[in-house]
Amino acid sequence: MRVINFNGGPAVLPMPVLEQAAAEMLDWNGTGMSVMENSHRSKEIAAMAAETQETLKQLLGLGADWSVLFCQGGASLQFAMLPLNFAPAGAVSDYVDTGLWSTKALEEAKICGSSVHVAASSKADDYTYIPREYSFSESPRYIYLCSNNTVRGTRWPSFPKNAPAPLVGDFSSEFLSRPLDLSDFSLVFAGAQKNVGPAGLTIVLIRPDFAAAGQKGLPHMLDYRTYLANDSMYNTPPVYAVYIAGLVFKWLRDVMGGLEKMEAYNQDKADLLYDCLDQSGGFYRGTARPDSRSPMNVTFRLTNEELEKTFLAEAKKEGLVGLGGHRSVGGVRASLYNAMPRESVQTLISFMKNFMAKNG
Amino acid sequence: MRVINFNGGPAVLPMPVLEQAAAEMLDWNGTGMSVMENSHRSKEIAAMAAETQETLKQLLGLGADWSVLFCQGGASLQFAMLPLNFAPAGAVSDYVDTGLWSTKALEEAKICGSSVHVAASSKADDYTYIPREYSFSESPRYIYLCSNNTVRGTRWPSFPKNAPAPLVGDFSSEFLSRPLDLSDFSLVFAGAQKNVGPAGLTIVLIRPDFAAAGQKGLPHMLDYRTYLANDSMYNTPPVYAVYIAGLVFKWLRDVMGGLEKMEAYNQDKADLLYDCLDQSGGFYRGTARPDSRSPMNVTFRLTNEELEKTFLAEAKKEGLVGLGGHRSVGGVRASLYNAMPRESVQTLISFMKNFMAKNG
Repeated sequence: MRVINFNGGPAVLPMPVLEQAAAEMLDWNGTGMSVMENSHRSKEIAAMAAETQETLKQLLGLGADWSVLFCQGGASLQFAMLPLNFAPAGAVSDYVDTGLWSTKALEEAKICGSSVHVAASSKADDYTYIPREYSFSESPRYIYLCSNNTVRGTRWPSFPKNAPAPLVGDFSSEFLSRPLDLSDFSLVFAGAQKNVGPAGLTIVLIRPDFAAAGQKGLPHMLDYRTYLANDSMYNTPPVYAVYIAGLVFKWLRDVMGGLEKMEAYNQDKADLLYDCLDQSGGFYRGTARPDSRSPMNVTFRLTNEELEKTFLAEAKKEGLVGLGGHRSVGGVRASLYNAMPRESVQTLISFMKNFMAKNG
Repeated sequence: MRVINFNGGPAVLPMPVLEQAAAEMLDWNGTGMSVMENSHRSKEIAAMAAETQETLKQLLGLGADWSVLFCQGGASLQFAMLPLNFAPAGAVSDYVDTGLWSTKALEEAKICGSSVHVAASSKADDYTYIPREYSFSESPRYIYLCSNNTVRGTRWPSFPKNAPAPLVGDFSSEFLSRPLDLSDFSLVFAGAQKNVGPAGLTIVLIRPDFAAAGQKGLPHMLDYRTYLANDSMYNTPPVYAVYIAGLVFKWLRDVMGGLEKMEAYNQDKADLLYDCLDQSGGFYRGTARPDSRSPMNVTFRLTNEELEKTFLAEAKKEGLVGLGGHRSVGGVRASLYNAMPRESVQTLISFMKNFMAKNG
């Protein structure tokens, strides 16, 4: 029996996608073999990969000034590839620190020799909000941000304008949850395991002219130009994950109706849950400042840790799983990614109201 | 309908593994969700990953002096990680050049600043054999070899003894096709997409003391110690690929009976096909020297390229696919990985005899 899966990532995927993947496991697309068994040099896989890239560009409204790369190694490898390519030893890069993942990114840039300037940080306030004012350095190579913070449940409502350098960013946990205006960005990346597909695929959107200006002499697999010049097939890409991503993109376009409708659907789900918190008279306390609340990850606390344990255990008995907060902060987190149905959020809210009635 | 899949990689996987993966796509192991949807921090995934490591060590007879890592980026990223960790700028590393993939590895080491010494090469003879004599440098950090060459159809029959440094190697296309004596090795790696599972997972076997002596100050995802210290979960590993690998390892142990039996089965398949070549009176010409023939990749030519085209086209019509040689050399290549049944090799041989009768 399927449960209701509130995992922060890897996370819930659309049922029709999983059903199709299961149905064509032994014979995909008339090839007489699984996607996993097809050569990445076959015309069928080439067409599938190209269609996946095109569907993604279509969803985001991207033109020829953007390329879609299929990388590996997750956001954590991007944390190193970014400075290695664009802010090598001695060069300055600006980071906005909004929590665990942006902190890891800036620490990795330091390891790579980049001279890191923190342009803004909400660390002093326990990362409960997204800063709105920034003190950028004079001529950074790029300005880095993490657009959605899974641990703290915050999301950038909008992005800096007139910044002194291209924006680059980690969009992992909100990628494809809303339309994106990427006009001030030169590179964004997203680990697949939230809104895209299985872990092991990292989607990178990059402007080719930005890539071209990067550092020379890097190992092939760490140089964005390698992926651009070989259409992400310098070596064998994670083909099965690309295939699942392609199915998810088509589901987003054809079933959910594209990113504007997806955003409205997601905001509605999040509003339902945040309203439940706000109307609980302090029984459930949202941890993020209201102006910075993430529709993807709703983080909250109960009045004490003992009660939180009981809450999580009873939720699990009801088939509501993955509600534990990130291991670095504890508490409760309900991740409401694209594939989480509205009805499942209503089920959670009913449970929460009952739990409060019994324990309030 | 399933075809007979002679792809060089990604390649054929065992039917029972694919059937199980399809059957539990929506609900794995009682979790109420797909493997892909499970948190990598869940106890179920942790147990699955640990069991996968243990089954692999059991198959190879490895003890506590070896660790199993789940990496990403394929062999191509290992080509860089090896010198970055063990032979940084100025240090000497020795390479045996047996074809395309070892050449790529040594070129990557040069990019990483390693001072590369070629200890032996069969380049002058078109990589048709594995060298048996080596001129090692005085004190290399490691000695690199590629144990099976998919492009040229050669395999190392045995490995150098009493070498002046630890052996390291790329075992991608023969991994788990035979028992391995790793006593002279300190690190071996294998891209999953031959005998292990889906592309996007790289299995690394490493001696922890070797890893500990590596270069400091590397980006986390390029430092083997990161994987060791976090049991390959510093960030989200390619969970689905690890799961398929685990199923394949159990199939190898429980259905095929382990690596000694697997080796005998593989050698028998290869002997059948090589005999067919050798008894064809020159109609089919094996490209590898008999003493260096690979049981995994049987490469051969017909008397002219036109005939090869006809051969490949007619084979495909009979459901024998993936027989084209590597794009860098052309010709014909039949890859006979673990999951290729003996009966399928016999079907190929029948086709080849008929084709020769018609065209000889």
